[in-house]
Amino acid sequence: MSLIEKSLRFHEEKRGKIEVTSKITVENRENLSLAYTPGVAEPCKKIYEDKEAAYTYTAKGNLVAVVTDGTAVLGLGDIGPEAAMPVMEGKAILFKEFGDIDAFPISLATKDVEEIVKTIKMIAPTFGGINLEDISAPRCFEIERRLKKELDIPIFHDDQHGTAIVVVAGVINALKVVGKSMEDVTIVINGAGAAGMAITKMLINMKPKDIILCDRGGIIHRNNPNNNDFKEEIAKITNKKEKRGSLKDAMVGADIFIGVSVADVVTEDMIKTMNKEAIVFALANPVPEIMPDIALKGGAKVVGSGRSDFPNQINNLLAFPGIFRGALDVRAKEINEEMKLAAAYAIADIIGEEELRPDYVIPEVFDKRVVKRVAKAVGRAAIETGTTMVK
Amino acid sequence: MSLIEKSLRFHEEKRGKIEVTSKITVENRENLSLAYTPGVAEPCKKIYEDKEAAYTYTAKGNLVAVVTDGTAVLGLGDIGPEAAMPVMEGKAILFKEFGDIDAFPISLATKDVEEIVKTIKMIAPTFGGINLEDISAPRCFEIERRLKKELDIPIFHDDQHGTAIVVVAGVINALKVVGKSMEDVTIVINGAGAAGMAITKMLINMKPKDIILCDRGGIIHRNNPNNNDFKEEIAKITNKKEKRGSLKDAMVGADIFIGVSVADVVTEDMIKTMNKEAIVFALANPVPEIMPDIALKGGAKVVGSGRSDFPNQINNLLAFPGIFRGALDVRAKEINEEMKLAAAYAIADIIGEEELRPDYVIPEVFDKRVVKRVAKAVGRAAIETGTTMVK
Repeated sequence: MSLIEKSLRFHEEKRGKIEVTSKITVENRENLSLAYTPGVAEPCKKIYEDKEAAYTYTAKGNLVAVVTDGTAVLGLGDIGPEAAMPVMEGKAILFKEFGDIDAFPISLATKDVEEIVKTIKMIAPTFGGINLEDISAPRCFEIERRLKKELDIPIFHDDQHGTAIVVVAGVINALKVVGKSMEDVTIVINGAGAAGMAITKMLINMKPKDIILCDRGGIIHRNNPNNNDFKEEIAKITNKKEKRGSLKDAMVGADIFIGVSVADVVTEDMIKTMNKEAIVFALANPVPEIMPDIALKGGAKVVGSGRSDFPNQINNLLAFPGIFRGALDVRAKEINEEMKLAAAYAIADIIGEEELRPDYVIPEVFDKRVVKRVAKAVGRAAIETGTTMVK
Repeated sequence: MSLIEKSLRFHEEKRGKIEVTSKITVENRENLSLAYTPGVAEPCKKIYEDKEAAYTYTAKGNLVAVVTDGTAVLGLGDIGPEAAMPVMEGKAILFKEFGDIDAFPISLATKDVEEIVKTIKMIAPTFGGINLEDISAPRCFEIERRLKKELDIPIFHDDQHGTAIVVVAGVINALKVVGKSMEDVTIVINGAGAAGMAITKMLINMKPKDIILCDRGGIIHRNNPNNNDFKEEIAKITNKKEKRGSLKDAMVGADIFIGVSVADVVTEDMIKTMNKEAIVFALANPVPEIMPDIALKGGAKVVGSGRSDFPNQINNLLAFPGIFRGALDVRAKEINEEMKLAAAYAIADIIGEEELRPDYVIPEVFDKRVVKRVAKAVGRAAIETGTTMVK
């Protein structure tokens, strides 16, 4: 049976992947009177006196909404809220299985930024955190910015920050393998969507020599009338020499290539023009910007992709369960830059210096140590930056 | 330990009552590739081609949102969305335990009718049905009316219709016990909130001799300048003789009293003024309009209450799990009058004629037969009225 048939049969048999279950059984009058009337009035009164008590008496503190508008689903694009749901349910069960977090998928019947922000604010009392998912750029930036400002629970757009955190973890370890320092490397990033923007911003804070961000139009540079606000903003902090040209031009003399774009846009020859001991993370899914074996043939030293059938799989699953686990554990009001960086270092540090190899710079997705270490590091960073409710 | 302490400890230990779990385990790469990328793209594509496929490949078809704004919670009133959550979680687990329905509680950060309607419409793609809960009258009428018109999934305000269905079931059986016919009885209903209005409307369709509806201001009658639109509408179809006065006046010569109001507003003397073989359902919680033993002392023949420590407990739990189970099973687009009436008769019919007694006109809440029979009757009524997607 093909993967296609298997997947369809699998989803059809189960009628979806999530279930809302009860932590208790209500098989007798006593349990019914505790879980429902009249006993249930007591926790209600406690929360009415102090909203904080919701974290003690309800599921809120461990409950994350996985919210999408269905506009940027996998490589499928704008397929709408109903069709996005299998992915959202999948995400929800990964939250549960990897982070022991109750995550509930919500697909919205709108693509309007204002309506999305408003709806999420309206349903927020239910949740301890919001994971935005598969919302297309540039709307995702505005939606996240607004929600972070207007709500005091963690808001996290995984396609941006989850990806960025795992990429940064990979870069940290890959630099050790090739013996280069961040301040000496030039990084080329192809793709200026949600992931590309977030990777660029996170790496900029780590002060590399330069970052050159490219999109379909080639190298992004200042004062380009085609730039939207987000691109103009990023152009101001990247591409110091104001290079112009194509992705091919950008890659000449670069130390690191990070692709979050589409299949087959990088050739073996382009890899050959990079500096020695090049690092190549080609993350387009399911077909990367360049196949890992071709990149190695072109002379790259460390190669990663989004695929599980090659070494160094860059997978968000290494980040989001631990990030939210850590944030929820300490009742963080947000997920800030320090928490994200702490997560990246925690992921990188799973692999000891003596274990690091060109084909092992990022932990396996089923490495049980990852979630715990990420959660702990994220919680500590939240406390250190004073963004927690619980001290 | 008191019930208060027990309930608080119970809720604190579990940190809420609901959990979002996975129907599968994701402990290896193969399952991960089916439940998530790349396999998950296949059901997405199917749903993109035909939205109906969401009922095949996702949890939608068995998923009900339990939505509140926290304005009319138990006897506590307007306690806000966070404080309402223990009740909503309780409702959700009752859906699961009694109806095998995945129900997810959503508390809204607004009391505005327009915002509530809009938010529910926005999140509707996720769900197969919406159960409105503890939303105060008269806003609940408008919210339900709008949603029924604008969405094609079942919308059900349980405080109205769940209560009405179980009351009607009790009335059907109580009339058999006292040997009276619907067309000969006068019914007094005290309380013109969500439940009172719905009970009145449902009973009116069964053509009793008359219904006299009372609220805090006494008997509701036509052309009273104090009537809001909803009361004026109901006044036109009740109180045929245009009686005026207090609840006490209304009860003189009545055959049935139904209280959905507040504690202790009915006295033994008022019961004495009713017709012989009176039926009294005093449903205020936790303290009824008149205690059941006092009502019996005043001469009532059949007495019911909302309490589990007296016979004839009128409890919504007899209705909502079966109603939704039946509606979801046949993909009903709504829950219409015929479906509600079918539910009431199904509940009443659980008790055979030979079993009927004054203290047994309504089944026990833990009677396992109820959900199945109600679901079947509701599904059949949906098919007969042509409101199903699946034939």
